[in-house]
Amino acid sequence: MSKHALGAIIPAAGLGERLQCVGSPKPLVKIGGLTLLERTIRTLRLGGVDGKIVVVVGHRGDEVSKFAASRKLDVVIVTNPDYQRGNGTSVMAGLDHMPERFVVAMVDHLHPPQSVKTLLECEGDFVAAVDTKPSFADVEEATKVRLEGDKILDIGKKIPEFNAIDTGLFLCHRDSLRELVPAQDEALSWNTVKRMWLASGRQIIACDLQGLPWIDVDTPEDMAKAIDVIMSWAPSGKDGFVSRNFNRHISRRITRLLANTPTTPNQISIMSLLLAVAGSLLIARRAYVPGGLLVQLSSIIDGCDGEIARVRLQQSNQGAIFDSVLDRWADSAVITGMALSSESRSSLVAGSLALSGSLLVPYSRARIEAELGQIPSSMLSIGMTRDVRLALLAIGSILRKPRETLLSIGLLSNLEVLRRLLQLARAS
Amino acid sequence: MSKHALGAIIPAAGLGERLQCVGSPKPLVKIGGLTLLERTIRTLRLGGVDGKIVVVVGHRGDEVSKFAASRKLDVVIVTNPDYQRGNGTSVMAGLDHMPERFVVAMVDHLHPPQSVKTLLECEGDFVAAVDTKPSFADVEEATKVRLEGDKILDIGKKIPEFNAIDTGLFLCHRDSLRELVPAQDEALSWNTVKRMWLASGRQIIACDLQGLPWIDVDTPEDMAKAIDVIMSWAPSGKDGFVSRNFNRHISRRITRLLANTPTTPNQISIMSLLLAVAGSLLIARRAYVPGGLLVQLSSIIDGCDGEIARVRLQQSNQGAIFDSVLDRWADSAVITGMALSSESRSSLVAGSLALSGSLLVPYSRARIEAELGQIPSSMLSIGMTRDVRLALLAIGSILRKPRETLLSIGLLSNLEVLRRLLQLARAS
Repeated sequence: MSKHALGAIIPAAGLGERLQCVGSPKPLVKIGGLTLLERTIRTLRLGGVDGKIVVVVGHRGDEVSKFAASRKLDVVIVTNPDYQRGNGTSVMAGLDHMPERFVVAMVDHLHPPQSVKTLLECEGDFVAAVDTKPSFADVEEATKVRLEGDKILDIGKKIPEFNAIDTGLFLCHRDSLRELVPAQDEALSWNTVKRMWLASGRQIIACDLQGLPWIDVDTPEDMAKAIDVIMSWAPSGKDGFVSRNFNRHISRRITRLLANTPTTPNQISIMSLLLAVAGSLLIARRAYVPGGLLVQLSSIIDGCDGEIARVRLQQSNQGAIFDSVLDRWADSAVITGMALSSESRSSLVAGSLALSGSLLVPYSRARIEAELGQIPSSMLSIGMTRDVRLALLAIGSILRKPRETLLSIGLLSNLEVLRRLLQLARAS
Repeated sequence: MSKHALGAIIPAAGLGERLQCVGSPKPLVKIGGLTLLERTIRTLRLGGVDGKIVVVVGHRGDEVSKFAASRKLDVVIVTNPDYQRGNGTSVMAGLDHMPERFVVAMVDHLHPPQSVKTLLECEGDFVAAVDTKPSFADVEEATKVRLEGDKILDIGKKIPEFNAIDTGLFLCHRDSLRELVPAQDEALSWNTVKRMWLASGRQIIACDLQGLPWIDVDTPEDMAKAIDVIMSWAPSGKDGFVSRNFNRHISRRITRLLANTPTTPNQISIMSLLLAVAGSLLIARRAYVPGGLLVQLSSIIDGCDGEIARVRLQQSNQGAIFDSVLDRWADSAVITGMALSSESRSSLVAGSLALSGSLLVPYSRARIEAELGQIPSSMLSIGMTRDVRLALLAIGSILRKPRETLLSIGLLSNLEVLRRLLQLARAS
């Protein structure tokens, strides 16, 4: 890869006939609360496109332009008056804005950022991201590809033999493309451009995405399927025991519902805090069962903010900090409520132990990350992750055992902090 | 600067006559709990010397070699049987181990790492770090230098005119030095080598340290002065109000005493925690005055661990993490003690607020540092730094106002956390 900036063209000029019933022009159709256009832009940026992004508009182009301006999208809008002659003319219309190398990304193909990263690792004057193991795409409707090794031999909607499909993502070379396609006023689909390229004796290199979860959105049915595909992008490898085996199964359903509303991740973080505070007030008044249930609900909802952020491709450091500080306030409230529910002095000491331990497990981790860049895997929590602590609080509350619960959480979490310190001492 | 590894020679072979009364051979004389030899090595490493360091021994060389081996110092020991012919022979004895460019650092000159960094920014085949504004060195005893611009015209102990002094730190070129000094068996001091260099028509470039706090240690009086010089290296710019105006004045005196003992920074961190726990037990039993005093003492002692680490040139990420986690335990103990001292329910809520706030001020900072690399200066604590919180706890205890104290600390520190979150939201 050269070190020059990499541009991108997003052809977004077509009719999108089968989605017209939705009302918005196709680039502005929302999936999981985010328009196809914004998704494509964020995916390109997260995937490594650092230069200019051109959006080529045609059908209902005014609406798309206005939207881009109102959202202050960091793109250049180019209008293609000839869009009805095919999406090849839209790519050509953006060419003058492009640096030497650029990506072409169809606005109706939803890709995880990893697809773009994979594409950018391939070399060639014309690289097409293809998929030999498509999991979600409608193979019937797709553009098919015949491969031999990483060379494309044939490409088209109706080729007789194929062993991969086209994923709507390409890496192109400006001057070669300009040389190949003379100015003309015939119909020109992007597939035609690819066939012209092959016919001229040039090579199209196939970059195999090997089943990465992407999908082509053409119909309302595709829209429903797309949200599941996007949800599958969210990693959950670092979840604690309770989260992995219980909370996530529910939070993902809630996220699927919330994703299509305007709810923001920060709003969900606040909602989770408020539920915890409500739970703590109930527990303090010895309404142990409803209080414990609210605490567990808060813990479940706490998974949704990160999920929504990932679904909308808008994970941010700020959001992560905000969420983690609110989580600490929620923990403090629940533990305080539980300590207040039992008026014995020993409960108060247990409560203080639980409070300091619950805050010091994440504190020690944050300090280690701040000083060392990342936490060595041997120092990760072995048991007292937040999902586990909150589940213990919820169960302890329902069982009406405030003191025992606080004492176990206090001892176990402080021991976990001590274990980190000892490992740190051993490592130095 | 070339990208090749930079070596260093530490001539450590001399008699050190005026320090013989101390008992140890001069390189093993301790200042602030660390031998001159270890100081010189750490200063070179912290200053940017990344290649081989050779220690040339002579007088009582066996003891120095054994010490280096027992401490597993990362150096090569070279014995100079001719050390009595002068320290120039010691530099020449280390030459075969050196890469093209290397530093010469006298073992009895204590420099802050910044001196080495400054030296390495200068270019030339022979660069001498000089000082036009010496603050601590004994000018009478020093090697004098006559400068014109950055060129050295004359150098020696007894030159008629001078405008700077030699600081015992040099950047040299191996082959030029080998060419200049033939193998011979005459007396050869390092000053003679410098004069031969000038006499041959070559240039010595002066690199002016401009009053950086370095000192030459030759006598027991110098040793006493040296500890003050070293203490002046410790930055204290980030201290809170109470620390800057009160704690530091006392902690520096304590550090000065502790520095010469084998006490480690981590032991001091633990001592500070134990004092806080003792204070909290007293406060919980309503022994408010002695309890409050112990809390303030703990806060003062908490300054000493970092000071000792800086005096010994051994600041580490691990030490910083260890100290900060122990500080949080100390805070938790004091607040819990105070909440228990007054049995009203409102004190307990205030205590919980104070505890969460006291842990969340540093937690939010650590999270911001972990996510953003560093904390924007606008988000630094504006009032509720740890020294201030502990001083409020100590005073509140002495005044027998546990509830009011906890409530103010709880409100102010949680407000500070909220302010950080709002600033973060505004920045994104």
